[in-house]
Amino acid sequence: MSDLKFSVYGESTSSTQFIAKARQFRLIVDEPEELGGTDQDANPVEYILAGLAGCINVVGHIVAKELGFTINKLNIEVSGNVNPDKFLGQSNDERAGFKSIGLNLIPETDANIVALTKWLTIVEERCPVKDNLNNKTPVKLSVEKVYN
Amino acid sequence: MSDLKFSVYGESTSSTQFIAKARQFRLIVDEPEELGGTDQDANPVEYILAGLAGCINVVGHIVAKELGFTINKLNIEVSGNVNPDKFLGQSNDERAGFKSIGLNLIPETDANIVALTKWLTIVEERCPVKDNLNNKTPVKLSVEKVYN
Repeated sequence: MSDLKFSVYGESTSSTQFIAKARQFRLIVDEPEELGGTDQDANPVEYILAGLAGCINVVGHIVAKELGFTINKLNIEVSGNVNPDKFLGQSNDERAGFKSIGLNLIPETDANIVALTKWLTIVEERCPVKDNLNNKTPVKLSVEKVYN
Repeated sequence: MSDLKFSVYGESTSSTQFIAKARQFRLIVDEPEELGGTDQDANPVEYILAGLAGCINVVGHIVAKELGFTINKLNIEVSGNVNPDKFLGQSNDERAGFKSIGLNLIPETDANIVALTKWLTIVEERCPVKDNLNNKTPVKLSVEKVYN
């Protein structure tokens, strides 16, 4: 298949709040009060965890079908630690983002643990979001000065 | 500061739809109909783009304040291409995720282009989500078999 292009366009509504439009959908990103925000919705790194879990869900169902078993339900726990010092400009000792991310997948399924282990290996390889986090992805920023 | 832990817990409501809970917030992840989904909200990779743009917004305002200028509004366009072949199990020729991600930042500000260029360099370095995408992040998956 040819490449699919995904785009989001949005604007700040405060120094912490951003309203993003993805096709017909409106996503609010904010920060909790402890991080200076107005806590109107999940924060940027929570969006990353939700996107990762949602991606594992989609790929998990595709791969289960290929392997010939059924997943009736899939619960996912995902978490990671961020040290805020670099982000806040207080120190460069630690990286800015998640140090690591851990996911625990709890499927309701008729598959045995051997099949599930094989399933997990294939899901890991084929999940787009896992690929972008686990491996390097070029991210290019440009700035456009608007003269009023 | 000590590390901050972020967690999301959620469950599949179909083979493409996932409802994620991040603290008190409920985020729906789905796929468009072309990718086999029910199109109830943004898809996993759009969540990643929204989280990245939201993160750039937060860091952008912090760094502008440090550099002594004001951003009245910040518009951000973000996009990237995904080849779906690996994800769909059709070929391993291309990576699963975004090949690259491009952002264009359009601030309404009193800063000149020299200050904005400096600002962009610092924002790039300190944005947690940009770090996680641009650099390798360990992602560990485990599976838990539930016996009913």
